[in-house]
Amino acid sequence: MVIVRALLLAGALSLAFTLFLTPAFIRLFTKLGWGQFIRDDGPQSHHVKRGTPTMGGIIFILGSMFGYFLANALTQDVPSTSSALVIVMMLGMGVVGFVDDLLKTRRKQSLGLGGWAKIAGQLVVATVFALLALQFPNGRGVTPANTKISFTRDLPLNFLVLGTVAGIILYIIWICVITLGTSNGVNVTDGLDGLAGGASILAIGSYVVIGFWQSNQLCHNVRSVMVDPARCYLVRDPLDVAILATAIVGGLVGFLWWNTNPAKIYMGDTGSLALGGALAAFAIVTHTQLLLLLIGGLFVIETGSVIVQRAYFRVTHGKRIFLMSPIHHHFELKGWAEVTIVVRFWIIAGMLVAAGIGSFYLEWLQT
Amino acid sequence: MVIVRALLLAGALSLAFTLFLTPAFIRLFTKLGWGQFIRDDGPQSHHVKRGTPTMGGIIFILGSMFGYFLANALTQDVPSTSSALVIVMMLGMGVVGFVDDLLKTRRKQSLGLGGWAKIAGQLVVATVFALLALQFPNGRGVTPANTKISFTRDLPLNFLVLGTVAGIILYIIWICVITLGTSNGVNVTDGLDGLAGGASILAIGSYVVIGFWQSNQLCHNVRSVMVDPARCYLVRDPLDVAILATAIVGGLVGFLWWNTNPAKIYMGDTGSLALGGALAAFAIVTHTQLLLLLIGGLFVIETGSVIVQRAYFRVTHGKRIFLMSPIHHHFELKGWAEVTIVVRFWIIAGMLVAAGIGSFYLEWLQT
Repeated sequence: MVIVRALLLAGALSLAFTLFLTPAFIRLFTKLGWGQFIRDDGPQSHHVKRGTPTMGGIIFILGSMFGYFLANALTQDVPSTSSALVIVMMLGMGVVGFVDDLLKTRRKQSLGLGGWAKIAGQLVVATVFALLALQFPNGRGVTPANTKISFTRDLPLNFLVLGTVAGIILYIIWICVITLGTSNGVNVTDGLDGLAGGASILAIGSYVVIGFWQSNQLCHNVRSVMVDPARCYLVRDPLDVAILATAIVGGLVGFLWWNTNPAKIYMGDTGSLALGGALAAFAIVTHTQLLLLLIGGLFVIETGSVIVQRAYFRVTHGKRIFLMSPIHHHFELKGWAEVTIVVRFWIIAGMLVAAGIGSFYLEWLQT
Repeated sequence: MVIVRALLLAGALSLAFTLFLTPAFIRLFTKLGWGQFIRDDGPQSHHVKRGTPTMGGIIFILGSMFGYFLANALTQDVPSTSSALVIVMMLGMGVVGFVDDLLKTRRKQSLGLGGWAKIAGQLVVATVFALLALQFPNGRGVTPANTKISFTRDLPLNFLVLGTVAGIILYIIWICVITLGTSNGVNVTDGLDGLAGGASILAIGSYVVIGFWQSNQLCHNVRSVMVDPARCYLVRDPLDVAILATAIVGGLVGFLWWNTNPAKIYMGDTGSLALGGALAAFAIVTHTQLLLLLIGGLFVIETGSVIVQRAYFRVTHGKRIFLMSPIHHHFELKGWAEVTIVVRFWIIAGMLVAAGIGSFYLEWLQT
């Protein structure tokens, strides 16, 4: 019960932080000259956005930390290992994005870190996370992650069957694939006012529900012996993970107030890489890796549109499937209003999230 | 488990109905000449909206019925009395709104039924609902509603202490107050593209959670004896109520696809009165009447802004608090973009809904 208070408190504090302090950050970022430089390869209509402050990710990262830690302190709860790992990933990815954003504003152009330098930074963060997530067993020997592939819980697919060294290496590669796919997916989606922020609220919000349900049906649930051993969840710290997810969602909602069309501030790579990293980390520590294809379904579609466009272009020696990729630009060029695309893409994201949570719950019912 | 399938199915079918069939309805309504006539007392910028088809409420009312009944049929479940009552209220209010909308298009003006005729129609529907809701006890003697005032469950405030006749009369008046307040609240809110629809998704979505939780913690739960008798819920058919709420939410999401800015269709009074009626009925049959002040908090704010504006105008002999009421027009005249107001009002609605569901859950925890 203390913990449910912590959950509500975390969301409320984080939301208050970003809702009320974002204007001060906007003034600060403007003074620092942290304006957005629009890519020349985007639609022409975006050129009016030049100069709007970016790196707003800093605000909701700080807000989430403020909400999460203060809620834990006020309820005399202790931050958990799993949440700490999600935070490591979020901050690590945020730093990679921040360096990229900072270079862009310094060079007064839209291109920041070279593509490979950015990917190398993400790989380092993901690898550190992967290695740490196998440590820190709780009293029952459960670590935040393990070397199995998971869908709505661990599947009987363990990388370790290939031997310890090969297994660990494959596990690290797998974690890197999930993490880079997700963080770049959110990054690619972040092209219209409020789009990535709103979609991230829905996706990360899933982990409030999933963490809450897992804690209700935890195998080593100290408060209750009514859990069915055939379908209980073998995860670490699910309720505290739900608290962290609530804090991030709260921070994003307050940020969206200022980020919605016409945006007063952008999240930048700082924000999109951090959110993608957090989302991947949530999927890993709740053992719902493949479910992320539904929960982050919009990011999958956006990334897929870029890949399909490039592959088709290469194969056909110059033809295009979409007028422009990522796919939200395609609809812009087709004449949809920016806000129409944003709300419709939120609807798509929401449908995919509902399908994801529905799958998670149905799997539990049927087990 | 069959019932959870019904829930997911109801939402998906209803969503598919409105998402795919709304364009056909738009063509039909345009042929019928059911265009919107903009009130001369709204902001000037709204005059461009003249001619957009209205009465779109018909589409999501049909879609919700389609999803709810087909899902029940496919899972061999039986529609419940409580859901049937919510449907009676939604359809009844929808008919009142439809007559009003139809008169507007016939008379080629924005004013439909006279104010009193519209209120009389709503009072008839609410009274019929109030009387029916005291009938139909289930095997345990639980009727959909009773004569007590409820917050997150029945309070020890029973109108019957004033005698049977006076008690029943006061109960009917109370149900009429809730119903007319809510339906006119949604109606007043329905002034910007997607605003009332999005806010209704959040508010009615609450009853998916509340119905689901009540069914989990039902006093006469046949599937489980683990329910704590001190805090179990004495309500009728909560899970089927959640299924109906899911169907309505699904229908609204598909409708919002077409109704978001720039709207291709409006819900009209048909839609807003039906949604408000459904929302009030959900609060009554789940015994969460006063909680509706939070769950429908945005509608309370919108209605309040009109009342405050009028009262202040009368008291001060002509001064105004807001540039224009309802309050969304105030921000329009202050220069906020329409879409900014809509998204920010959705955020406010979402925060109030979160506070409502949080209060509901905390009351259960603390009991």
